[in-house]
Amino acid sequence: MNKPAAVETQPRGPTDHDVRSQIVDAATEYFTRYGYEKTAVSDLAKAIGFSKAYIYKFFDSKQAIGEVICANRLGAVRAAVETAMADAPSASERFRRMFKALVAAGGELFFGDRKLYDIAATAASAPWPSALAHQAYLEKLILQIIREGREAGEFERKTPLDETARAIYLVLRPYTNPLLLQYNLDEAEEATVQLSNLVLRSLAP
Amino acid sequence: MNKPAAVETQPRGPTDHDVRSQIVDAATEYFTRYGYEKTAVSDLAKAIGFSKAYIYKFFDSKQAIGEVICANRLGAVRAAVETAMADAPSASERFRRMFKALVAAGGELFFGDRKLYDIAATAASAPWPSALAHQAYLEKLILQIIREGREAGEFERKTPLDETARAIYLVLRPYTNPLLLQYNLDEAEEATVQLSNLVLRSLAP
Repeated sequence: MNKPAAVETQPRGPTDHDVRSQIVDAATEYFTRYGYEKTAVSDLAKAIGFSKAYIYKFFDSKQAIGEVICANRLGAVRAAVETAMADAPSASERFRRMFKALVAAGGELFFGDRKLYDIAATAASAPWPSALAHQAYLEKLILQIIREGREAGEFERKTPLDETARAIYLVLRPYTNPLLLQYNLDEAEEATVQLSNLVLRSLAP
Repeated sequence: MNKPAAVETQPRGPTDHDVRSQIVDAATEYFTRYGYEKTAVSDLAKAIGFSKAYIYKFFDSKQAIGEVICANRLGAVRAAVETAMADAPSASERFRRMFKALVAAGGELFFGDRKLYDIAATAASAPWPSALAHQAYLEKLILQIIREGREAGEFERKTPLDETARAIYLVLRPYTNPLLLQYNLDEAEEATVQLSNLVLRSLAP
């Protein structure tokens, strides 16, 4: 007669996970349509057909939902970058593809639905953990590409690695931080090509 | 008996000029304290002690006053840049000093009095003629420094001049456009050094 107890101790994770996903999906759609900043959890709850209290069982706050949405979008940007770089024949080409994919995917995922931009802006201003993690990913990726290029003899080795990486990060930042990208969107595609060329000239041995 | 007529045809410019200056000075002080966007010409008139109609004799709109203030500040930024570059011993050093002075003077003149920032932001967004003229000045100055460096054998000559100049302008822009500088102010000083180094590496022969 242990069965009922066994059922009770079974992890309810999967089910909770499904509900969380359902809330995040509905919130993504809702925020895309009505914006993030001006929406209250009660509006969202009404739209999904859940009670506010039920949503709060899964998320502490509106920001907690926003963070998951933001993390999802940034994850999609990183996936696009990795795909773009996958079979690049050189470190230079990896750099070009990284920069291009960052701007293309970032522009699409945060500005394609203009309304979702305010989550990105809030995340970048605060900054939220997802924004910091994304920044750390970028810094690490830049460092890695420079290291590869140096090892392959494509890039110069005189400048301290950290200094080179930091400066390149600064060149990319206006096109990867949504707060800055909003002012650069129109010419971002052309700018990434021109700036990639400049950066690669600066890396020449 | 020609005297009265002669007096009448004398240009009233100097006097008008003085009144214009007086209005601009008072408006600069007023906008610095209360902001530009939220202030009406009637508030300004009251503060100066002129009638609104009298101010409109000299300026068509609040924007016309704002444009003069903005042009004055941008002129001061350019003067600071020219002074900084004056006795630079090389094109590389001229570039470094230009970038440093642009950011220092721009930061001070538009962000030192935080309230005056909204004139700069409005000017850069619109953009106003003063902002466009400043941009043209920068583009020309960058081109000129590259030319000098190429002639002196300091810089490489393979890359098309226009392409080099455009890419460098793009590197500087986040620190010279007030809309972007607001997000970069904290680290602007360090960034200008690191980015100057990167740009000069990219220009190496």
